[in-house]
Amino acid sequence: MLKLAFRTSRDLVKNSSKTTYIIARTLFSNQKFPSASSRTISTSSAALAASSGLVSRSGRNPKPKVAQARISGCSKYLEVSWGNGEVARYPWVWLRDNCQCPKCFQPSAKARLLVMKDLDVDCFPSEVKLEGSDVKVTWQDGHESLWNPDWLQQHIFDDEKTLKSRETLLRNKRIMWKEDFQPKDIPKGQFGQVLTSDEKLLEFLVNLEVHGIHLLENVPPMEGMIHKLADRVAFLRATNYGREFPVKVKMEPSNLAYTGAALGLHTDLVYYDYMPGVQFLHCIKQAEGSLGGESVFADGMSIAAKVKTLDPEAYDLLINVLVDFHDIGSDFYRFHKLQRRPIIERDRYGEVFRLNYNNQVRDTFLAVPLEQVKPLYKAMKLMDDELNKTAIRRRLKTGDMIIFDNMRILHGREAFSVQAEERRNRLLQGGYSDWDEFRSRIRVLQAQQEGN
Amino acid sequence: MLKLAFRTSRDLVKNSSKTTYIIARTLFSNQKFPSASSRTISTSSAALAASSGLVSRSGRNPKPKVAQARISGCSKYLEVSWGNGEVARYPWVWLRDNCQCPKCFQPSAKARLLVMKDLDVDCFPSEVKLEGSDVKVTWQDGHESLWNPDWLQQHIFDDEKTLKSRETLLRNKRIMWKEDFQPKDIPKGQFGQVLTSDEKLLEFLVNLEVHGIHLLENVPPMEGMIHKLADRVAFLRATNYGREFPVKVKMEPSNLAYTGAALGLHTDLVYYDYMPGVQFLHCIKQAEGSLGGESVFADGMSIAAKVKTLDPEAYDLLINVLVDFHDIGSDFYRFHKLQRRPIIERDRYGEVFRLNYNNQVRDTFLAVPLEQVKPLYKAMKLMDDELNKTAIRRRLKTGDMIIFDNMRILHGREAFSVQAEERRNRLLQGGYSDWDEFRSRIRVLQAQQEGN
Repeated sequence: MLKLAFRTSRDLVKNSSKTTYIIARTLFSNQKFPSASSRTISTSSAALAASSGLVSRSGRNPKPKVAQARISGCSKYLEVSWGNGEVARYPWVWLRDNCQCPKCFQPSAKARLLVMKDLDVDCFPSEVKLEGSDVKVTWQDGHESLWNPDWLQQHIFDDEKTLKSRETLLRNKRIMWKEDFQPKDIPKGQFGQVLTSDEKLLEFLVNLEVHGIHLLENVPPMEGMIHKLADRVAFLRATNYGREFPVKVKMEPSNLAYTGAALGLHTDLVYYDYMPGVQFLHCIKQAEGSLGGESVFADGMSIAAKVKTLDPEAYDLLINVLVDFHDIGSDFYRFHKLQRRPIIERDRYGEVFRLNYNNQVRDTFLAVPLEQVKPLYKAMKLMDDELNKTAIRRRLKTGDMIIFDNMRILHGREAFSVQAEERRNRLLQGGYSDWDEFRSRIRVLQAQQEGN
Repeated sequence: MLKLAFRTSRDLVKNSSKTTYIIARTLFSNQKFPSASSRTISTSSAALAASSGLVSRSGRNPKPKVAQARISGCSKYLEVSWGNGEVARYPWVWLRDNCQCPKCFQPSAKARLLVMKDLDVDCFPSEVKLEGSDVKVTWQDGHESLWNPDWLQQHIFDDEKTLKSRETLLRNKRIMWKEDFQPKDIPKGQFGQVLTSDEKLLEFLVNLEVHGIHLLENVPPMEGMIHKLADRVAFLRATNYGREFPVKVKMEPSNLAYTGAALGLHTDLVYYDYMPGVQFLHCIKQAEGSLGGESVFADGMSIAAKVKTLDPEAYDLLINVLVDFHDIGSDFYRFHKLQRRPIIERDRYGEVFRLNYNNQVRDTFLAVPLEQVKPLYKAMKLMDDELNKTAIRRRLKTGDMIIFDNMRILHGREAFSVQAEERRNRLLQGGYSDWDEFRSRIRVLQAQQEGN
């Protein structure tokens, strides 16, 4: 489907926000990035702009002006001299491809209408001139293109500031937990405010992306609140376990999780290629009558860095050796999931973004050469030791919701006793969403703040 | 969440199949793989087993027997001599980690209960012996483990046949379209049969994975049929365009897709990290009164191989240069999606698995060094030329549903005239699902056939 072809049946719950957004963003500015003053991103738009890498175009910055536009000496580029003396160059084929006329570009959909078949890779202008403040190129086939100075500024090639700003638009830079990271360092917010204030929602989303974890307090102690928050961002994602799942102690437990037993640190659904990016856990009722049952969290990104320092060879095994993970069963439907992946997964920039660490669903089958088996176990054990050393513990209270990056943050649970009726009533509800949707929402909200 | 913790609220439509499945699979066998006799995978279970790489353990193959079990000469392994004279070795730590006793392993959930913290990487046996036909190891801490010969056979290390079989379990080997691939070569099936017969469903799913495309005929010409098929496999996936979308001509078209204009070859939603893996297009009503409006398809995997042969340098640019793709708008909710990826994406085995090719949503912003811009356009143009040369055209009939691998197969539409009322009523419905779910369903159905 082409993006223009869409009209949806809107068969899921709509986002509850009624705010009218203005999509208007300037990527380029001469002002320096302000530096964030606090560890946790504050609500001020200055800090948010810093965290997003986007610098708003304020009235103080004069609009860029084109002093001259011409064919470059080597003939390969449009050469633009700016009022401040700087020079920018743009390749002809890229300019033709991005002609902004109504035949070539649909501005409201921000979509290219020109098809590749009709693009002449060797196109060259017959004339280049200024038309008012805009640059006008007439092509040898007679087609005319016009770009305004703002647009040209936003699309400067090989410009470090522009590139950095775009990288932050792609994703906010994550901050690793330091060794002294404490439960009190978990970013905190009020559930009600996040539901009603776009500023608070953005603050929540950016902190979640940057630190990998966020606590929301005073959530109504009833089912459906995860759904409500997910819909405020985008929607809850379905997996073979459905869209929401309860975690509770049962009188006659059929398995470990339904007892008060400890659950080791792990990431969820590692046997999915499309492993859920964000996990929600809502404490509807804590076992008030006892101690224990604390939630445990550790930052896989920090641990990976630690293991790399402690034992580079072990780290090499964890990023290179492929391990099988599987899940076979019947819940939402009958399933047999299977993935073969390294324990520590890095993206194309070499950054750790996904920990495949779940002892329960690590397959008995191991497609690893015999000689590599023990070194691999030693490496996993080293990582496990470091995880347990640096893990933080926080007892969720009734009305707490913890949201975390399921690919980065490992989670578990301490043991608790289940004798008293009070403790048996402990009830959590969980669910998932994905970073595609969360990052999309961040960009929409940031553009809205920029536009204000 | 740990896998044992799940009970779902089952808030989506359940899979319609009521069949009781038996999960029982033997990965090892001495028999040779039969070779598939036809280009399109046939319905016979022999061919399906071949395509899946799984070889069923038939009554003709004697059960493996352990002749002797002992500590290997180097002390590092359990050494098992089989009745046929072959010898297999298993590392101690892996054996301890995969102890099958009820304290260490939950058989119904196929989940490991033993936690990494309690695993001694240097564990060593105090005794190894045969107990009946099973191998029994007593560890130095007194714990006892028992494995049956079948289990040990299925887990042999460094065995080519076992490894191949597992690789096919991970995913079926895809077959590239040859240059003479014709519309008649598209695998074909009957919608009604796929809904009611598990054998037909498996045939459909395997052919879809192997060839990247499948036609289903005699689909009732009404909305909701995509939903029905998706639920038969797993479920329809939501995106920022909702869960199902209509494609129809409008009297006063607001954009290209709602006219009769041609739509160039592309893949959908390339601006998602989790790009939908499978696309459904159901022709509810074709523009019967005119020619034109043919659906166009091309195999991105074949084209990538072709470009690599024709111009290795162009291919290098297409697999290495990162290009921005975006979509900004409001539909199911307000969104701003953004991805930076190569045009041709390869997996960790170097195989092409994802084409990011969509001229409309390729961003105007290009984070590429100035000198690389024109070579990149030349490479894209070369790929586009090859796509258009080898594309196949098929006019969907009312009641046809075409399902294809959205990451591999590019799709488009020929122009058609829209004067007559008849043609204006042309209506398609589309939707998405993911390979995680489709491959899971294949494994479940194959295990079921193996168990029969």
